[in-house]
Amino acid sequence: MTTSVRITYSSADQDEASWIPGLQAALPGAEVSLWQPGVPQADYAVVWKPPQQLLDEQRGLKAIFNTGAGVDAMMKLRLPSGVPVIRLDDAGMSVQMAEYVCHAVIRHFREFDGYEADMASGKWSFRKPRSRIDYPVGVLGLGVLGERVAKAVAQFDFPVNGWSRSPKTVEGVQCFHGAAQLDAFLAASRIVVCLLPLTPETDSILNARTLAQLRPGGYVINVARGAHVVDADLLAAIDSGHLAGATLDVFRVEPLPKGHAFWSHPHITITPHTSARTLRSESIAQIARKIAALQGGQTVAGTVDAARGY
Amino acid sequence: MTTSVRITYSSADQDEASWIPGLQAALPGAEVSLWQPGVPQADYAVVWKPPQQLLDEQRGLKAIFNTGAGVDAMMKLRLPSGVPVIRLDDAGMSVQMAEYVCHAVIRHFREFDGYEADMASGKWSFRKPRSRIDYPVGVLGLGVLGERVAKAVAQFDFPVNGWSRSPKTVEGVQCFHGAAQLDAFLAASRIVVCLLPLTPETDSILNARTLAQLRPGGYVINVARGAHVVDADLLAAIDSGHLAGATLDVFRVEPLPKGHAFWSHPHITITPHTSARTLRSESIAQIARKIAALQGGQTVAGTVDAARGY
Repeated sequence: MTTSVRITYSSADQDEASWIPGLQAALPGAEVSLWQPGVPQADYAVVWKPPQQLLDEQRGLKAIFNTGAGVDAMMKLRLPSGVPVIRLDDAGMSVQMAEYVCHAVIRHFREFDGYEADMASGKWSFRKPRSRIDYPVGVLGLGVLGERVAKAVAQFDFPVNGWSRSPKTVEGVQCFHGAAQLDAFLAASRIVVCLLPLTPETDSILNARTLAQLRPGGYVINVARGAHVVDADLLAAIDSGHLAGATLDVFRVEPLPKGHAFWSHPHITITPHTSARTLRSESIAQIARKIAALQGGQTVAGTVDAARGY
Repeated sequence: MTTSVRITYSSADQDEASWIPGLQAALPGAEVSLWQPGVPQADYAVVWKPPQQLLDEQRGLKAIFNTGAGVDAMMKLRLPSGVPVIRLDDAGMSVQMAEYVCHAVIRHFREFDGYEADMASGKWSFRKPRSRIDYPVGVLGLGVLGERVAKAVAQFDFPVNGWSRSPKTVEGVQCFHGAAQLDAFLAASRIVVCLLPLTPETDSILNARTLAQLRPGGYVINVARGAHVVDADLLAAIDSGHLAGATLDVFRVEPLPKGHAFWSHPHITITPHTSARTLRSESIAQIARKIAALQGGQTVAGTVDAARGY
């Protein structure tokens, strides 16, 4: 690392007090500073939902690091042409996603929520065990996160389907791909887990038409972006009895607005966008490794394809 | 299968209406009937908590099949000498145990119970992510069930310890064995999962002395037998703040008596002995395979060592 590397940091979360010293410690030869309008040009930007002005003013960037797995917020901005946008390609997120999804799948399949309610009311009673062959799990999105989740669910002997934009092969997972195979994927699945990137193609992908394709008694787990789900369509599918319920970690507006039907629906479990948190130390270590690699002329994983949108 | 094979069935659960036709269908050449006092001698007994009289009267048994994973109830009876007792050696139970334990481990580690309480009160708030390195999971018992559970937990990148009576090796698990290494195992673990057989040596193994060895903020998951835990000692360890809580599926008296402190303790989650249910069709298929093997002079897995007690 030469002393000439300059890094500018900007985050909508205003967490620079911990990130900047962390980046500085991981890149001792670099100059790391908080972005402010009009400051000198940097070589790399490390950002989360950055202001447009940063992207407009910083003309000498070699790469922009997004401190999260999803780049949908960044893709809505005007990006400097020819500058790669690099997302975190795991940094401890996939294991968190696997935990979140397995917990939700098992909780629904084994009716542990129902048992807890029974016990809370002093009732000792059995439910008829369900057969896992009746609960095929479909994972939408087979990137780093989706593949890890699909394999984790398969450990519990559920039939697992996967769907991705382009053809993929994952051991133990029946893989579908492309728009032409989406209906077949849905018809083969009872629990559907959304781990897609948010792009114009995937926006509102879980809607009245697609939810109707799921097997009766279906269940939705959304850990991607709120805009993947059409809220009113999900509520209607549950209230009609076609779906058994949903576990949702992400919402079109966050925090979820007071009074939204998801807050109090008896068959919907919600969490406050906590399925996979960015782990600062692992993320900083990954960004530092990637900057060193780029400075050495190497390529790095996680480079966003702007045309594809992720 | 020759037509001479006679099978007698007896279960404290009085579920013969489904088991006897099932066994008959799986063993078409056999005569399967419900045990009654004084009935003719059978070649095999298929039982759950059988009456002592059955064991005393049936003098021609070649083997006794226990329709569950635990044989502690059977070991309290006078058994005919020289007749092998055979327990189910998986029959769909290990995956259920893996599900139950992973759900409980993840729920505690990720504080999903706390998040659900927050959301139920309309509160959108984050908790500081915990580091999994601070949550080593210790599995007591490394039989078919314990090994599967240990491997399933390890999938989520927790450090995993295992303890068994005799030395074992499980990939990805730091193994301890024997009374001499029990304290070291406990000191290395924060979440302890009990999957031991109940024997005189393991009765009350989770008591004031051993619970004190667990790391501060420890957590107990018992899916074996209620008698493994000294109830008052567990409650005291939680109420003192040394332990964070417990998830319990089994109890000294079942159903758990009304008024027992476990029913309403804020840090104890209870379920009604449902962690791994005997799946009838898989169990019947396994018993039928084993009878055919024994008739052919072969040995079968799951034969109980009476001296060892499991």
